[in-house]
Amino acid sequence: MPRVIVEVMPKPGILDPQGKAVLGAMPRLGFGGVVDVRQGKRFELELAEEVTEDQLAQVRQVAEALLSNPVIEDYTVRVEAS
Amino acid sequence: MPRVIVEVMPKPGILDPQGKAVLGAMPRLGFGGVVDVRQGKRFELELAEEVTEDQLAQVRQVAEALLSNPVIEDYTVRVEAS
Repeated sequence: MPRVIVEVMPKPGILDPQGKAVLGAMPRLGFGGVVDVRQGKRFELELAEEVTEDQLAQVRQVAEALLSNPVIEDYTVRVEAS
Repeated sequence: MPRVIVEVMPKPGILDPQGKAVLGAMPRLGFGGVVDVRQGKRFELELAEEVTEDQLAQVRQVAEALLSNPVIEDYTVRVEAS
């Protein structure tokens, strides 16, 4: 079944407390090689039919209205090779 | 700066209430072509130096111990082309 991936990440410069918490916890796990962590969301959408340009445009609308907060987050939409 | 992406998704068969909520909201936005939605997490880790096999093994440990719950979630680790 065709699958579309939507990735939502905090915009550059926007404070990311979840990412900072992960970054702060890493040295306690003995892992010191990381200088920054950003945490975002990943959505897998399974579509009923083949992905058309029209459907991708609709997914972008959903990403903008429902899956992300465009003020503080960027999103990308891509079709997963099946 | 080299970047490693960790993607964490609910295992197949594990209930995913966030994904179900998104799926349920889509028809209200007039978007009906989606049959399933899964929601997971995406982490971008910026490393101080070039990614070595040793570091990737450490990132996998972090993914297992800190970024995911291995009982209910799967994770993938990959190096992002820079």
